Amino acid sequence: MTLHEQMTELARRARAAAQALTRLAAEEKNRCLLAMADRIEAEADRIRRANEEDLAEGEKAGLSKALLDRLLLNEKRIAGMARGLREVAALPDPVGRLIEERTRPNGLRLRKTAVPIGVIVIIYESRPNVTADAAGLCFKAGNATILRGGKEAIRSNRVLTDILVEAGKSASPRFPEGAVQLVSTVDRAAIPALLSLTDCVDLCIPRGGEGLIRAVTECSRVPVIKHYKGVCMMYIDGKADREMGVRLAVNAKCQRPGVCNAIETLLVDRALAAEFLPQAAAALWERGVELRADAEALAILRAAAERLPGAKLVPAREQDWSNEYLDLILNVKTVGGVDEAIAHINRYGSHHSDAIVTRDEAAAQKFLNEVDSAAVYWNASTRFTDGGEFGMGAEIGISTDKIGARGPMGLEELTAYKWLCFGEGQERA
Amino acid sequence: MTLHEQMTELARRARAAAQALTRLAAEEKNRCLLAMADRIEAEADRIRRANEEDLAEGEKAGLSKALLDRLLLNEKRIAGMARGLREVAALPDPVGRLIEERTRPNGLRLRKTAVPIGVIVIIYESRPNVTADAAGLCFKAGNATILRGGKEAIRSNRVLTDILVEAGKSASPRFPEGAVQLVSTVDRAAIPALLSLTDCVDLCIPRGGEGLIRAVTECSRVPVIKHYKGVCMMYIDGKADREMGVRLAVNAKCQRPGVCNAIETLLVDRALAAEFLPQAAAALWERGVELRADAEALAILRAAAERLPGAKLVPAREQDWSNEYLDLILNVKTVGGVDEAIAHINRYGSHHSDAIVTRDEAAAQKFLNEVDSAAVYWNASTRFTDGGEFGMGAEIGISTDKIGARGPMGLEELTAYKWLCFGEGQERA
Repeated sequence: MTLHEQMTELARRARAAAQALTRLAAEEKNRCLLAMADRIEAEADRIRRANEEDLAEGEKAGLSKALLDRLLLNEKRIAGMARGLREVAALPDPVGRLIEERTRPNGLRLRKTAVPIGVIVIIYESRPNVTADAAGLCFKAGNATILRGGKEAIRSNRVLTDILVEAGKSASPRFPEGAVQLVSTVDRAAIPALLSLTDCVDLCIPRGGEGLIRAVTECSRVPVIKHYKGVCMMYIDGKADREMGVRLAVNAKCQRPGVCNAIETLLVDRALAAEFLPQAAAALWERGVELRADAEALAILRAAAERLPGAKLVPAREQDWSNEYLDLILNVKTVGGVDEAIAHINRYGSHHSDAIVTRDEAAAQKFLNEVDSAAVYWNASTRFTDGGEFGMGAEIGISTDKIGARGPMGLEELTAYKWLCFGEGQERA
Repeated sequence: MTLHEQMTELARRARAAAQALTRLAAEEKNRCLLAMADRIEAEADRIRRANEEDLAEGEKAGLSKALLDRLLLNEKRIAGMARGLREVAALPDPVGRLIEERTRPNGLRLRKTAVPIGVIVIIYESRPNVTADAAGLCFKAGNATILRGGKEAIRSNRVLTDILVEAGKSASPRFPEGAVQLVSTVDRAAIPALLSLTDCVDLCIPRGGEGLIRAVTECSRVPVIKHYKGVCMMYIDGKADREMGVRLAVNAKCQRPGVCNAIETLLVDRALAAEFLPQAAAALWERGVELRADAEALAILRAAAERLPGAKLVPAREQDWSNEYLDLILNVKTVGGVDEAIAHINRYGSHHSDAIVTRDEAAAQKFLNEVDSAAVYWNASTRFTDGGEFGMGAEIGISTDKIGARGPMGLEELTAYKWLCFGEGQERA
């Protein structure tokens, strides 16, 4: 079989499974999810053995310590996968949700109803726990999943996929074999082959670095919802509560710097800069943050930095404005008000999460309206852009796209809709 | 300037216009739309002169009569464009609609709010009235539009675009120049160049034949919502009201055979076929419909066809099942019940509109649940899949995709959403 034939067979099996999944009731899906959780715990040793082989191969191949850590499935992470599946089982079923209902003058009743998307391809990198997390969410929303993890995690991913399918089948005789499948070849050509099958694949969600996402977008013929980088920003307006501004900037940068909803740039209204910047810088330096500042901010902060041993202050370069540091580094820029802040964010940001701190309602409304991002905050930290924090229970990631889903993608965002039309013999005149 | 540079400039102008459009209030947009309608009427002669040049060129190039007719802008069609724009002005503004609101335990208030998509590329074929219709709808939803019509209509499209922009500017000083733009080159390479600009283009909607849509999907790096062909079907269940079945089949096929929501195949439960088929065939033959039947239906209908002079009955070939005739031709097939009907529709249909006629609620629910189409009807004609009939007021077309929009795309479907998050200083713990 050629690679293209293999992918076609995989995708056809997924399409058939998606069709079969429309016949599973909510309770039946939940029973499968709970069985998956139980079996992951029961088979922890089998998972760990496969994972150890992956880790040994990874070490031989010279993977970095950070990558090896992401690859690792220890007891805590295995328990985390099981817990995640149980949490998904406990969430309300997103399928069948009535989105809108209208009755037309001719009596035709239209019900816009949430339905599964169908077949979803998930492409991800080294973390094998994504296998269970993504498959569980997609399954709960009635979708068949084709998983394509990193080649360094292939043994762990194979065992996890086998366990999910075995558990599903043990819990329901109607669990379709093709509901969760792994692309088991590591051949990179599998991705374009799979993403050319527009008849059988409804959506691709790539999760990972910029290179991966770009490559997927370039080759895909099926719709892609990108979970792109988070270049998030916070703007401290001239009418901000300064104490709140410092607190939120510190939270948005430092509470967990390695995630996509942490900020990378702090914009400060010139009117407030001389008072605000030294105060904010002191709090940020205390937490070890390096500041990369534009000329004006640099001039304001230089004296303070020289007084404070260890304070990191360097000039910002053009490429810094669009950088996702995922680290204790923060750009600082002075702007001439809310319009300039909006323009900077729309130009250099990644349309993920951005915040304004102000007491001025007009400025806030302008910012909320004109910043072109998935989540726009007024007087709150950007760190809340997250399925759990948004009350979705769980998420498959944060979409930086606008079509299909934007922001955290939970169960509802893993559904499409269709129009169910109820008549009593209506014909068109 | 290279073609790529030209397209980049066009797209950047559109992006800037989209940003400016977020600042236009609903009344301001409506004033522009009404001015566009007035100016189209006032400049009817200018439009007709350009159109006559297109028609003359088209005749020289040997365009078919059907194509020349689609290209024609007569008084009625010019009035139709003006009326369409006024209707769009009268519709409620889809921007700012509150889709969902939730307050989190920490007091953070989340408002999922409809916003413009941004920059939309519309690719269409010979009908120049699409220029005004599509631009009007996109503009009302706050989007900047880049139009790419057929090369045979280029003069008409240029004049129409100029008129729309002139009218917009006359009605509001804040109307951005780049809100409506036409790709004025007829070079085919313009499409891939434009659709590679992921930073500036948010969505492409191709409207037209299969070849056009395939080519766009193949080359696009930006999201595409396809308005694909309509291979719609009607299934007459064993428990159907026969009289209703005949009436709906005739309506769905004959009321306007040249449109995408007309049916191409009639599926009949074997249990009912011997009684139903001759009755349905008689009504369809009376309207000049050619029937292409499977072996069983052929056996049932042959005698009747022989008795009726002019009755058209031929065997169906495999390729007929997925054919969009847009004509008075109908496939007829017997099936062994609702499951077989669903399987046939999901395999050969185009996921557009399909109907079941039955008195059996369980069969209907199964059909509604399992047929994977944008609109699924129980006891009604498929001909209602239409923005007007669905109460949307106007539509840009019927999406056969699942991601972003499905079925008729009206103003709401031309918006995206964002999360507006209102806090009082919340930070993440």
